[in-house]
Amino acid sequence: MNAPTAPQHLLPTIAIRAMPAALVDALQARFGKQFSTAMAVREHHGRDESSFSVPPPAAVVFAESTADVADAVKLASDYAVPVIPFGVGSSLEGHLLAVQGGISLDVSRMNAILSVNADDLTVTVQPGVTRKQLNEAIKDTGLFFPIDPGADASIGGMCATRASGTNAVRYGTMRENVLALEVVTASGEVIYTGTRAKKSSAGYDLTRLMVGSEGTLGVITAATVKVYPLPEAISAAICSFPSIEAAVRSTIQVIQLGVPIARVELIDANTVRMVNTYAKLGLREEPLLLMEFHGSPTGVKEQAELVQEIATDHGGQAFEWASTPEERTRLWTARHNAYFAAVQSRPGCKVISTDTCVPISRLADCLLDSVTEADASGIPYFLVGHVGDGNFHFGYLIDPDNTEEREKAEQLNHALVSRALALEGTCTGEHGVGLHKMDFLLAETGAGAVAMMRAIKQALDPQNILNPGKIFRL
Amino acid sequence: MNAPTAPQHLLPTIAIRAMPAALVDALQARFGKQFSTAMAVREHHGRDESSFSVPPPAAVVFAESTADVADAVKLASDYAVPVIPFGVGSSLEGHLLAVQGGISLDVSRMNAILSVNADDLTVTVQPGVTRKQLNEAIKDTGLFFPIDPGADASIGGMCATRASGTNAVRYGTMRENVLALEVVTASGEVIYTGTRAKKSSAGYDLTRLMVGSEGTLGVITAATVKVYPLPEAISAAICSFPSIEAAVRSTIQVIQLGVPIARVELIDANTVRMVNTYAKLGLREEPLLLMEFHGSPTGVKEQAELVQEIATDHGGQAFEWASTPEERTRLWTARHNAYFAAVQSRPGCKVISTDTCVPISRLADCLLDSVTEADASGIPYFLVGHVGDGNFHFGYLIDPDNTEEREKAEQLNHALVSRALALEGTCTGEHGVGLHKMDFLLAETGAGAVAMMRAIKQALDPQNILNPGKIFRL
Repeated sequence: MNAPTAPQHLLPTIAIRAMPAALVDALQARFGKQFSTAMAVREHHGRDESSFSVPPPAAVVFAESTADVADAVKLASDYAVPVIPFGVGSSLEGHLLAVQGGISLDVSRMNAILSVNADDLTVTVQPGVTRKQLNEAIKDTGLFFPIDPGADASIGGMCATRASGTNAVRYGTMRENVLALEVVTASGEVIYTGTRAKKSSAGYDLTRLMVGSEGTLGVITAATVKVYPLPEAISAAICSFPSIEAAVRSTIQVIQLGVPIARVELIDANTVRMVNTYAKLGLREEPLLLMEFHGSPTGVKEQAELVQEIATDHGGQAFEWASTPEERTRLWTARHNAYFAAVQSRPGCKVISTDTCVPISRLADCLLDSVTEADASGIPYFLVGHVGDGNFHFGYLIDPDNTEEREKAEQLNHALVSRALALEGTCTGEHGVGLHKMDFLLAETGAGAVAMMRAIKQALDPQNILNPGKIFRL
Repeated sequence: MNAPTAPQHLLPTIAIRAMPAALVDALQARFGKQFSTAMAVREHHGRDESSFSVPPPAAVVFAESTADVADAVKLASDYAVPVIPFGVGSSLEGHLLAVQGGISLDVSRMNAILSVNADDLTVTVQPGVTRKQLNEAIKDTGLFFPIDPGADASIGGMCATRASGTNAVRYGTMRENVLALEVVTASGEVIYTGTRAKKSSAGYDLTRLMVGSEGTLGVITAATVKVYPLPEAISAAICSFPSIEAAVRSTIQVIQLGVPIARVELIDANTVRMVNTYAKLGLREEPLLLMEFHGSPTGVKEQAELVQEIATDHGGQAFEWASTPEERTRLWTARHNAYFAAVQSRPGCKVISTDTCVPISRLADCLLDSVTEADASGIPYFLVGHVGDGNFHFGYLIDPDNTEEREKAEQLNHALVSRALALEGTCTGEHGVGLHKMDFLLAETGAGAVAMMRAIKQALDPQNILNPGKIFRL
């Protein structure tokens, strides 16, 4: 690990590749109404939840099948033009932006549940299926898909960014929950990266190579993921703390004791205030932990009692419990609305999100100094965290037209990442590298690892057409 | 998935690459007493637990540091000579055999525990540390490393084959339990694939690309792995069943109900007989399940009661419980001695191991027909299984000099793999591909995925010096 030496450049040099008329004609001929060059459609596909603004893609293809994806990629390959897979547009780091031009390949219409194997706890879906859609589709089987990144993201996009979220502390991330993928390669070939077997030692782990590759190594056209029996009992709790430190130290102790907690989320007082205003919740405006326990009724009771004891030892109070789905939904409103509440608190703002993740023993060191810095900066922010995993997010709310604010926010982010790397952590727990963290990735892993990533990219996509200009400069 | 069309060739064509005298001199100069070309040393490094016999490596280097590994690989690279990492020699599929000649790089002396981060539930070790050594070293911390492939394998070797074993049903495999690796690349450069953060979206997942790459993409020189708090309560049980089917159907139900069982191992009547003879155990010579439950005292009791109920419904009887470590060890003796008991039951025999793994709902279909076939063949065999994961092993005990027996055993294996692939399973749950399963891998994943693996190999090891001739033909 090397400390990043200077705030990174916000965007790589943009060199838009030409979109030949012959390719436009060929796509039009092949895809008809599934193809568009209308500016409104292009613009919709030229932005995500990041704060970057770049020219939109030259065209959009709406794929409805694996064959559509394969043909679109083949045509792009014939003309060496970029292809950028697009799910619902909820990525945070500029992953979807056409920094080298080309085609946005929208897979949102590929939204079929292909198979539900309830006996094996697996489902296979097309990439445009969203996590909420999946859970709705399987709710009658007594199963659920736990990965919850907040946004109602597409499963394809969640694979591509190695997403996780609130339930990861117990159920793992997309890394642990994807069994197999169908992928269209840079030459338009369809490959299969695994089977439905729970474990395998059959060759290189192409599944996990694709998970987190951000569309740069292939286009995901189907995913087999793990699902879980709905717990017999679920209990949620909210607890206020006198300080962020008290909340964090409670969390650390819970994790170190091996309590199989399903969710443990931090929200700082600032963000509680924003949520109270946005959703009229009336929560105590103090740092709070939102927790959830899954298991047998006895198991949940045991966990809850132990955690309440730990929290009380750290000054936690105003415990509020929820056992019915309706009560739980109300408690979780605070967490699920945090992002929107923050954005609305400063009309016209853009969010610069941080995503550091550190070993749990380093969490307090990493978080508390960064809070002090953020408070001193004067930049408004929200702070939420999947603290059970050592992962938290500042969202700096900047005026996008104010260069000074943007730079200040980037300096805060830079200081935070430097701190996290020095504490043996990562610059991104779940959002991915995209455009925003290329220099951080280099600082984190070193030039050797990035060179290895680049060599893999060049071997699998020699024309650099799959979402070029992301993760590393190429 | 394509059905394999014919029994695979047992060994690829062997083309031994020359070992230039200048390289021998250079290795001798650099490594002195850590270098050997003595035939006894070479022969020790030229065999593993597979049934193959090929000429030994030309030389052996005993690495004592990452710098030693880097220098050995650099020298090998200068002369385009193969390098084969060697841990304890317990691999089952010919991984360690020098099919293209070259240097065996023995890392067993790199056996230091580099750091124990008890608060974060991680440890970092050199690759020659064995799993038992690791557990001995951390036992006073209240933590344990759960992955148990049977043999006292090295952590480096376990990473390289994506090993798992008896505890995987609850704790996952090496895929889920390796956080980060230090790796020497084909050019002798040292790279780092991750951090100690529990999760990360920082670029391509080089950790999991290396895990299971069987020494073909890099030499692992350090590994950071997850460890777990020793459960508050552990209970083990043994239960006999009237048939393999009854034992398997019990297991399927336990898994489908989501019981967090820590171990559930099948041993067939045949193998119980062998173990009784070998270890004088006096177990009922019927199919049995060995199970273990981890958790709080109440949680363990709940699990055990539920499982006993399910087993009894399937005709399970003669339940024997063990709660103290000594009692548990006695029960587990049967499982841990199965391999050696089987080998001793037929003096001079070699074992051909199968390693299929299927989705749990297909386990009975896959296993029962294969038992019928094995019984009909007349080849002696043992049968054990990590049945909670859908993974089981036949060990066909063949006379290595009897071609007919070898072919019969390979035909059994072939029929079993074909069945597993048709049931959406894998040819190898945990042993790896090595020399033995290259055709099976092709049948399982298809030519496209193998071509992608080969492209990655060629990009990262253009001279094909890292354990060449394994996983796929190259």
